[in-house]
Amino acid sequence: MKEKEFIEIIKNTIKGDIIGDDCAYLKDLGIVLSQDNLVEDIHFSMKFTNPYKLGYKSAMVNISDIAASGAEPKYITVGLSLPQNTDKSFIKEFYKGLTDACENIKIVGGDITGSDKIFISIAIIGSAKNRKISSRKNAKPGYKIIVSGKHGASSAGLKDLFCGIESKFSKIHLMPKAQIEFSKNISQNIQTEYAMMDTSDGLMDALLQIAEASNVLLDVDFKKIPYDKEIEKYENYQDLILYGGEDYQLIACVPKDFNVQNSFEIGQVNAGNGVEINGKLVKNFENKLFDHFKK
Amino acid sequence: MKEKEFIEIIKNTIKGDIIGDDCAYLKDLGIVLSQDNLVEDIHFSMKFTNPYKLGYKSAMVNISDIAASGAEPKYITVGLSLPQNTDKSFIKEFYKGLTDACENIKIVGGDITGSDKIFISIAIIGSAKNRKISSRKNAKPGYKIIVSGKHGASSAGLKDLFCGIESKFSKIHLMPKAQIEFSKNISQNIQTEYAMMDTSDGLMDALLQIAEASNVLLDVDFKKIPYDKEIEKYENYQDLILYGGEDYQLIACVPKDFNVQNSFEIGQVNAGNGVEINGKLVKNFENKLFDHFKK
Repeated sequence: MKEKEFIEIIKNTIKGDIIGDDCAYLKDLGIVLSQDNLVEDIHFSMKFTNPYKLGYKSAMVNISDIAASGAEPKYITVGLSLPQNTDKSFIKEFYKGLTDACENIKIVGGDITGSDKIFISIAIIGSAKNRKISSRKNAKPGYKIIVSGKHGASSAGLKDLFCGIESKFSKIHLMPKAQIEFSKNISQNIQTEYAMMDTSDGLMDALLQIAEASNVLLDVDFKKIPYDKEIEKYENYQDLILYGGEDYQLIACVPKDFNVQNSFEIGQVNAGNGVEINGKLVKNFENKLFDHFKK
Repeated sequence: MKEKEFIEIIKNTIKGDIIGDDCAYLKDLGIVLSQDNLVEDIHFSMKFTNPYKLGYKSAMVNISDIAASGAEPKYITVGLSLPQNTDKSFIKEFYKGLTDACENIKIVGGDITGSDKIFISIAIIGSAKNRKISSRKNAKPGYKIIVSGKHGASSAGLKDLFCGIESKFSKIHLMPKAQIEFSKNISQNIQTEYAMMDTSDGLMDALLQIAEASNVLLDVDFKKIPYDKEIEKYENYQDLILYGGEDYQLIACVPKDFNVQNSFEIGQVNAGNGVEINGKLVKNFENKLFDHFKK
């Protein structure tokens, strides 16, 4: 049983049509809305992180979803469930991390309850005012594919953490940064429809999602994907770059003549279906993609 | 360590000023926002409920928060974390229950992940358009105290469930109804500031919260509180009525001359501090109030 199958069942049951992007765009209210769950020992382990970093990352993960839509992140609420023996310092440090991640974003409420393990659910609202909102359905043949930065660092960092190593990669894994400026540069200036996603579940996952939703072929040149050269020391480092999750970079498909500061062009959108890396169609990727229901 | 102490720490850490009501009122966006967590074996047990009823109640709990603000419930997102062995029928039934509870409310997204136990976090947005939004700070001496309906039924129902009895009370416990009409009747028609809360943590908890936030004395006549006469058969039934949670009724403090259809006047707001039941100040209530960090 996989996450995507569950989502299909949900779509069929609620007969809704808005689910699909990282955020729901609620046009009548001029806002986008997103929510993410983080569960102890599934998404994070207290062996590797601390309450401050956990708070920081919890916020960033959600800010990244808003960035992916092109909206301006504005407000968050925090649903926090904690074991009974949790002490005051956890809460204090967690909220410090959360606050430090929430530059120009207000924490306006939420819920706090007991639980067995730590469970964090954050809802975030962005304003669509003066922004053009993205959709992963909007990639069109002729567009270029751009990304905001380096891939593979976060999953290399997780490997380091498992080996007990603190490194620049482990820091990126524990305290990612949402690409707010990249998002703003596009959504405040673009005139046409465009596709954008974050690469929280990996670059390949994002490419496949956009290709499927837009019904296009995404043609990617591997050597153009930015990554830290030090990643080459890891076994199968190409997989870290393509399939590793949690870099929280943005990928966008925009018209060729639309310039985005500090972006990296990694390929182009063609007519067709799927994703090609160096001219080769990507197949049999299922077991490489990240899925919380698979261990 | 108690829930309210945690909330104090949070307030001091984030230095925010909006937390306090069931919902955050985001005036610049014209919306209210709320989020609630429901954790297996803390808030519910699969021994007593089923996926359909769980979905239904999960939505209602959140709709009730919006009702408490006076706003119109519009959109929800659902963060659902489920054990790996969860099957398709759970998701289907859960979302059926959710959909049935969401009359005129759209389910627009969320997150689905793995977990150890079932964890549900729902975020809900209400529109403030043509509604006057409540605050628990707004009770004023001279106002009357009204409630939307009967209290004590839900906690009597939980007692029944523990004894293996299915009753009209257990039904109320498992499938509560948010008081949307009561809320709308007030917020669409009232001209002045008013206080409103739901009684999810018990009538007494709501009275104490309003009294403290508004810095007033709430004078309640016990015999005016509506309840089902059959509750009198339970031991200490007055405690079920005053302290029992999860009835999801609304309590409001409104001007004496403001009439609300289908409301029950249970007392009045006076100058002073605290809550009086039949003229006697309520003290030493701490061990009776509901707290998720206490067992």
